[in-house]
Amino acid sequence: MQGMMMNRPLSIISILDYAAEAHPDAGMVSVRTEGDTHRATYRETYKRVGQLAHALHALGIEQGDRVATLAWNGHRHFELYYAISGMGAVCHTINPRLSAEQMIYIVNHAEDKVIFVDTTFLPIIAALRDQLPKDLRVVVMTDHDHMPDTPLDVLIYENLLDGQKTTYDWPELDENTAAALCYTSGTTGNPKGALYSHRSTVLHALMVAAVMGGALGQGTNVLPVVPLFHVNAWGLPYAGPILGINLIMPGPGLDGPSVFKLMDQEKVYSAWGVPTVWMGLLGEIEKQGRAPEGFGDVVIGGSAAPRPMIEKFEKLGINVNHAWGMTEMSPIGTHGVQPPKVRDLPFDEMIDVKSRQGRRVYGVELKIVDEDGNRQPHDGKAIGELYVRGNAIVAGYFKNEEASAKAIDAEGWFGTGDVASIDDNGYLTIQDRAKDLIKSGGEWISSIDLESAALSHPGIANCAAIGVAHPKWDERPVLVAVAAGDERPSLDEIRNTMEPHFAKWQLPDDVIWVEDLPLTATGKVSKLNLRKQLADYKHPEVA
Amino acid sequence: MQGMMMNRPLSIISILDYAAEAHPDAGMVSVRTEGDTHRATYRETYKRVGQLAHALHALGIEQGDRVATLAWNGHRHFELYYAISGMGAVCHTINPRLSAEQMIYIVNHAEDKVIFVDTTFLPIIAALRDQLPKDLRVVVMTDHDHMPDTPLDVLIYENLLDGQKTTYDWPELDENTAAALCYTSGTTGNPKGALYSHRSTVLHALMVAAVMGGALGQGTNVLPVVPLFHVNAWGLPYAGPILGINLIMPGPGLDGPSVFKLMDQEKVYSAWGVPTVWMGLLGEIEKQGRAPEGFGDVVIGGSAAPRPMIEKFEKLGINVNHAWGMTEMSPIGTHGVQPPKVRDLPFDEMIDVKSRQGRRVYGVELKIVDEDGNRQPHDGKAIGELYVRGNAIVAGYFKNEEASAKAIDAEGWFGTGDVASIDDNGYLTIQDRAKDLIKSGGEWISSIDLESAALSHPGIANCAAIGVAHPKWDERPVLVAVAAGDERPSLDEIRNTMEPHFAKWQLPDDVIWVEDLPLTATGKVSKLNLRKQLADYKHPEVA
Ligand SMILES: Nc1ncnc2c1ncn2[C@@H]1O[C@H](COP(=O)(O)OP(=O)(O)OP(=O)(O)O)[C@@H](O)[C@H]1O
Ligand SMILES: Nc1ncnc2c1ncn2[C@@H]1O[C@H](COP(=O)(O)OP(=O)(O)OP(=O)(O)O)[C@@H](O)[C@H]1O
Ligand SMILES: [Mg+2]
Ligand SMILES: [Mg+2]
Repeated sequence: MQGMMMNRPLSIISILDYAAEAHPDAGMVSVRTEGDTHRATYRETYKRVGQLAHALHALGIEQGDRVATLAWNGHRHFELYYAISGMGAVCHTINPRLSAEQMIYIVNHAEDKVIFVDTTFLPIIAALRDQLPKDLRVVVMTDHDHMPDTPLDVLIYENLLDGQKTTYDWPELDENTAAALCYTSGTTGNPKGALYSHRSTVLHALMVAAVMGGALGQGTNVLPVVPLFHVNAWGLPYAGPILGINLIMPGPGLDGPSVFKLMDQEKVYSAWGVPTVWMGLLGEIEKQGRAPEGFGDVVIGGSAAPRPMIEKFEKLGINVNHAWGMTEMSPIGTHGVQPPKVRDLPFDEMIDVKSRQGRRVYGVELKIVDEDGNRQPHDGKAIGELYVRGNAIVAGYFKNEEASAKAIDAEGWFGTGDVASIDDNGYLTIQDRAKDLIKSGGEWISSIDLESAALSHPGIANCAAIGVAHPKWDERPVLVAVAAGDERPSLDEIRNTMEPHFAKWQLPDDVIWVEDLPLTATGKVSKLNLRKQLADYKHPEVA
Repeated sequence: MQGMMMNRPLSIISILDYAAEAHPDAGMVSVRTEGDTHRATYRETYKRVGQLAHALHALGIEQGDRVATLAWNGHRHFELYYAISGMGAVCHTINPRLSAEQMIYIVNHAEDKVIFVDTTFLPIIAALRDQLPKDLRVVVMTDHDHMPDTPLDVLIYENLLDGQKTTYDWPELDENTAAALCYTSGTTGNPKGALYSHRSTVLHALMVAAVMGGALGQGTNVLPVVPLFHVNAWGLPYAGPILGINLIMPGPGLDGPSVFKLMDQEKVYSAWGVPTVWMGLLGEIEKQGRAPEGFGDVVIGGSAAPRPMIEKFEKLGINVNHAWGMTEMSPIGTHGVQPPKVRDLPFDEMIDVKSRQGRRVYGVELKIVDEDGNRQPHDGKAIGELYVRGNAIVAGYFKNEEASAKAIDAEGWFGTGDVASIDDNGYLTIQDRAKDLIKSGGEWISSIDLESAALSHPGIANCAAIGVAHPKWDERPVLVAVAAGDERPSLDEIRNTMEPHFAKWQLPDDVIWVEDLPLTATGKVSKLNLRKQLADYKHPEVA
C-alpha cells in the first residue's frame, strides 16, 4: 500500500529559493580575482541566479547540456552551481590543477557547450583552445572593466547578466535528473566522471546539515577552502543555504597567510579543507603567535589528518572534525562530530578517537570485505576493503561502461579502494588506500600511520611514507620528508620517535629529504609521483 | 539526462539501523505504566525491534496491514513505530482522548488487525470491544507480572518478544510505501486519516534535524511531551536517532509536577509540547521557585504560544522555539530557531519576533491566498488562507475521497484552514484558524491576539476568546477565563490591560469565568466546545 503524501521532486534550486526567503540576511563573502571582497545575501544571489539562467538560455543551453566551470571559490561560481542545475543542465566543475592532457580529455568527454573561466585560468584555455571542441563558448567570470587581454573569442559574465530578468520560471524536473558532473583526478588512467542528480545532491545536503549542522548555527561564518571545482566543496554550497550559514569564499588565496588574514577579518568559526592547507595555516598561526579571531572548528578530510596536526589545533582550543569521503560519494561519508563521552576523555585518548575518520553520516552505509568479498566484522580489528552504499553514491561513471562495471560489487555496493577497519562504536579507521599500503614480507604497513608518527618529530614539517621495491621483502617503507628548519634529524632519531607505535620491522629503512612534496590536483601528497621519483631507488643495505 | 547515482529507497528502519551503529550510547529513558523508569540504548532497542517484527509476523501481519497503538510515550511505543513500518505494515497511532464514537469509527475505518494497548487504556478497549472488528487482536504493552485483570482475550507484549531472534531481514520497500497512519481529531465530522510514507517520514526527519538540530547535539536530553499517539511526536522519534539525542519519554505523567520532576531528574535540555502543558510546568516552576536543572530550550506549538508564556520562559533563561505545524504536515511546518540578529534584539522586540510562528523549514513551501485563490504578497501585511506544499504533506486522506478532493487546491497545495500573514523576513504569523476568527461588523479580530493580551493580566491563568453571535455586529468577542487566584479582575481592568494593543471595538464585550477550559483530544483549548456552551449566551447590552 502506498502512502498518501505529496511527491515533490527534490530539486537543487529549491535550496536557494528557501534561503532567499527564510535566511534573507545570510549569504556569501567572496575574495575575487578583481582584488576586492564582494558581499551578497542569498536573496540577492537568487536574483542573480535568475539572471544567469536567462543568460544561459540565451546562449542556447538546454536541459541535459553540460556547462563547465574553471574557477576559484566565489559567488559567481556558486551562482553557476544553481543556475545551471536549476534550468536542468549539468554543471561540470573542472579542477584547474589537472594536466593539460586530462583537461582536454574531460572537456571533450563531457561535450561541454560553454565554459565559465576565472581570469586566472584564461591562459590555460588559450593554450588548449585548439584541442577543445570548436563550438565551445568561453565566458570570463568578471566584468568589462576587469577583462584581461586575451586572444580568445570570449563573453563577459557580468555583461551576460546585465538587464536580464531576476526571476526565472524554473522547470519542474524529475528528481533523478543529472545536475552536476565532477571527474576524479584520474591518478591512474583517464579521469572518470561522477554524475550527480538533484535527488542525490539534496539528500546529501540534508544528510550533512543534519549531522554536521550542530556546530553551524544560523549566521555562522564558514570557510570552504575545499574547492567548488572539486567534490562540491564537500556539500557546503548546498548545506550552507539550508542551514543559513555564511560562506566565506577564499578565491585564489589558499596559502597560510591569505587564509589566516581572511579568517581573521571575517571571523570565520569553521574552516573546511585538506591537511596540506592546514599545514600552511598552522605555520602562519605559529608565526603570528595566535589563531585567527573567532576560529573554533576545523573540518579536515581528503587525506588522513595526521595526529600531530589534530593535537596542535586542539591545543589551540579549535575543535577538529576529521571527516572522510570521496568524489564518488558527493563526497561526505563519515564525520568527526563527537558525542559527549569523547569530548570528556583525557586529551590523549580524545586525540586517539579524533585520529580515526569518524562515524558514518545517516544515509551512508559501510561494509568491509576480505579478498573474496566476505563481510568482515565491525570489531575494530578486522581490516578489509571498504564498500559503501547510499543515495549520494555513484552507481557508475559517466559514459564509461568499463569503469562503471568495475566500480560496483555484486550486492550493489561501491568499492572505495580504501582499506579500513570499523570499530564497535561505529568509528571508521582508514588504514590506507589499497595502492598505498606498504607490503613488507607478506605483512601490510599503513603509510598513514607511519606519517602520523614521523610528523610528531618537530624536525619534520611534512612527509610521506612510500613502499619501495625490495628484493627480499617485496617492499620496504621509505620516508620522504620536508625538514621543518635548517637541521635535518637523523634516521635514527626519527625511528626513535616512531618506535613506541610500531614493531621494529615496520619502521622506515631510510629518509629522503626533499624541498617540497609533490601534490595531486586536489592538494594531496601525490604518492604516485613519489613512487615514480623513487623508481630507481636502492635500499641502503642493498645498494 | 539522468544522474548516475544509486537510488536507494528511503526507509524508516534505516534510521534505527543507523543509530544502533553510529550512536550506540544514545537512547531512551521511559517512565512506564509499571511504575519504573526504563533505560535502553538505540542499539538495544534495535534488537527488540527485530524481535517485535518476528512477533508481528507470527501474528500474521503482512505488508500493508494496519497495526494500531493506544499508548503513552515510552520505549515500547517507539519499538512499534519501527517494527511495524520496518516490515512494511502501517503503524496506526490512536489518540486515547478521542471520544468512544470516534475511536470506534477509526479502528473500523483503518481496519486494524492488531491493537497494542498500554494498561492504562485497557478499560477503554474493554468497553468498546463489541463495536470493534471481531478479529482484532489485543496486545497489552507490559509483561506477565504487571498484567492487570481484564475480561478481554489478550496477548502480552513481553511474552510475544520473548525468545524471538533479535535480527530481522527487513524487506526492501518502495519508498512510497505507507508507513504510518494518524487521524485528525475530527473537531468537525469524522476524523480523517493522514497516511505517511517512508519517503515522507525520512525526509521530514532530515528536514527537522537540519533546521532544528542545531540546539540538539549528540547526547542532548530531549523530552517529547507531545505524544507519539498524535502527529508522530513532532518527528522526534525519527529525527532523534539521526541526531543521536536521548529521548526522555514521560509516559502518563503530563501534569506540571510530574513533568518538572522528570525533567529535573533526567536533566532535560529541550522539551517539546503544546501550551497547556507549559502552563502546568510554569505553575510548578513558580511553586518551586526554580526551573528544572539543565532546562534550556522549549519548543511550543500546536496552538499559539501566548506572549506572556514566551516572556516567562525567556526571563528564566529558557530559549523559546515557537513552531507551527499540523497532522497533515507530519507535522512540522515552521520553526522558531532564530538568527543572531534576533537573539541580539532588546528583550521586547525579541519577544515580538518569537510570538510569531517562525520561518518555514526547508522542504515546506508556504503561500497565502485571498478568497479567490489569488496569491497575496509576503509583506507582513496581507492576510490570507495558508496553503502548503512539500514532500511531508498529505496529498489526500486515507479512504476518504470527498475530504481528499476538498483538501488540495488547483495548484496542488494543501489548504491548512489557518489564516496567516508572512513577512519579508519569512516569518509566518498565524492570525487564527479560519473558523476561530471573530467577525465583528465586517472586520476580523484574531482570537489568538486577544488571548495573548488578556493573559498578560496576572489575574488570568488561562483564557479563550470566542466570537459569539450578535444581532447587530454579526459576532462579538467574549472572553472565557480561568482566574489565577481567588480574586477575579473586573472586565474593565482586563480591557485596560489589553487596550494598548487593540482598537476599542476589538476588545471583548464580556468575561465569563470558568473553573477549567475544555480541551480537545490533542490538549488544546476546544473552542468548538466553548462555542457550544455559549450557544444561548446573550450579550450584556442585548440581554
Ligand atoms: N580523512 C581521510 N583519511 C584518509 N584518507 C582520506 C580521508 N578523506 C579522504 N581520503 C582519501 O581520499 C579519497 C577520496 O578523494 P577524492 O575523491 O577527493 O579524490 P582522489 O581519490 O584523491 O583522486 P582520484 O580518485 O581522482 O585519484 C578516499 O578514497 C581516501 O583514500
Ligand atoms: N504555533 C501555532 N500557533 C497557532 N496555531 C497553531 C500553532 N501550531 C499549530 N497550530 C494550530 O494547530 C493546527 C494543527 O493541529 P493538529 O494537526 O495537531 O490538530 P488540530 O487541527 O488541532 O485537530 P483537527 O484537525 O483534528 O481538528 C494548525 O492548523 C493550527 O491551527
Ligand atoms: Mg578516488
Ligand atoms: Mg487540523
